[in-house]
Amino acid sequence: MEKREMLYEGKAKKVFATDDPQLVIVEYKDDATAFNGQKKGTIAGKGVVNNRVTNFLMQMLAAAGIPTHFVQELSDREALVTKVEIIPLEVIIRNISAGSFAKRYGVEEGIVFDEPTIEFSYKNDDLGDPLITEEHALALKLVGPNEIKRIRTMAFQINTILKDFFAGINVELVDFKLEFGRVLNDYIVLADEISPDTCRLWDATTHEKLDKDRFRRDMGGEVEAYNEIMYRIFGEKC
Amino acid sequence: MEKREMLYEGKAKKVFATDDPQLVIVEYKDDATAFNGQKKGTIAGKGVVNNRVTNFLMQMLAAAGIPTHFVQELSDREALVTKVEIIPLEVIIRNISAGSFAKRYGVEEGIVFDEPTIEFSYKNDDLGDPLITEEHALALKLVGPNEIKRIRTMAFQINTILKDFFAGINVELVDFKLEFGRVLNDYIVLADEISPDTCRLWDATTHEKLDKDRFRRDMGGEVEAYNEIMYRIFGEKC
Repeated sequence: MEKREMLYEGKAKKVFATDDPQLVIVEYKDDATAFNGQKKGTIAGKGVVNNRVTNFLMQMLAAAGIPTHFVQELSDREALVTKVEIIPLEVIIRNISAGSFAKRYGVEEGIVFDEPTIEFSYKNDDLGDPLITEEHALALKLVGPNEIKRIRTMAFQINTILKDFFAGINVELVDFKLEFGRVLNDYIVLADEISPDTCRLWDATTHEKLDKDRFRRDMGGEVEAYNEIMYRIFGEKC
Repeated sequence: MEKREMLYEGKAKKVFATDDPQLVIVEYKDDATAFNGQKKGTIAGKGVVNNRVTNFLMQMLAAAGIPTHFVQELSDREALVTKVEIIPLEVIIRNISAGSFAKRYGVEEGIVFDEPTIEFSYKNDDLGDPLITEEHALALKLVGPNEIKRIRTMAFQINTILKDFFAGINVELVDFKLEFGRVLNDYIVLADEISPDTCRLWDATTHEKLDKDRFRRDMGGEVEAYNEIMYRIFGEKC
């Protein structure tokens, strides 16, 4: 597999073409941003942790019947994935109140919900990724009616699988963001990443934050937090 | 029916107790506010228009099988209604893009949707009435699962009835806000008002705005617009 020109550079990843038009290479960076790019920094080793954790979790989900874009891990920072047409919705599942939810509705963090919640944001940096209802996303033709049903079902299935997995390494899966893409014949697959950048992960005993909130909130210890997740999954640090 | 002490004064209405603990009197003011109270003014005669239009539409909906809080019109500015426990959600139905929807998602006003959309805002002035998904409203226990289903069904039924009615007086029902309340045995009824304060109403031929947007946007002609709606419904102005 030959790595060719860069197709896209995002906040935390670069995407490269390959000699196969249906495959791309994702390269994870150590760059960290928050608040729609207003806060910028670096978390040493983050790219390695996010690549390896994402690839591991994508394979676990695939084994449980969730179609994903993942093909193969190429190196510590690189993965080969299927090229998809990203659906411009961020899909957020919450098990426990935190972050923008707690702020928006004026409630404390840490409320354990009876049932997980789902919400969608319209992926649009200029608009600040606004919250969008299912009906609005359909009205704006960002997604089709069957697609949104499929995404909703997959997102809750993924939550069940991930929550169980993280519980096994003494981590609470507080909330997380997913992105989905269309491949051939408009088939929907899980895309993007699943990592401490895109999940809120709390130690189940101490409720210590082991995710990007340490960076967002200037708490310090973000390198250690990312490594702790890596260690609990793989038994090694980067 | 004896009008007793004022129970509550809102931005556009006062509510008074009566000698019947299950009934209250609503009195409509000419005061106008916008942007969560940041803009304040007066629209002469608005209280009369909103009272008479609301009472007329509530009776029309009741005749079509929608339970409402309306009991009786008492005067040009006063209505007798059943006392309800307001559910802290604003229910917004949209047929055509406009207002906060157009701004939030970066689209023009006037897009006619294939299907009407529904959205909920959490009624909380301190938080700025934030958009809230059904799952979030349930997670925060603002409403019960059967209640939200009932509200959703009623809101779309109301839209069908109102859209047809307004079409008959050459007015496009662009969007509108509803509030619902619980009465005895937690039965859900339509409450609050349905007026040019709470609906976007455009002349179907010229698309001229006949609603509170004239005030919000400093367009002028708000007295005439409210009177025009009154005239088209009742054949008289206030």
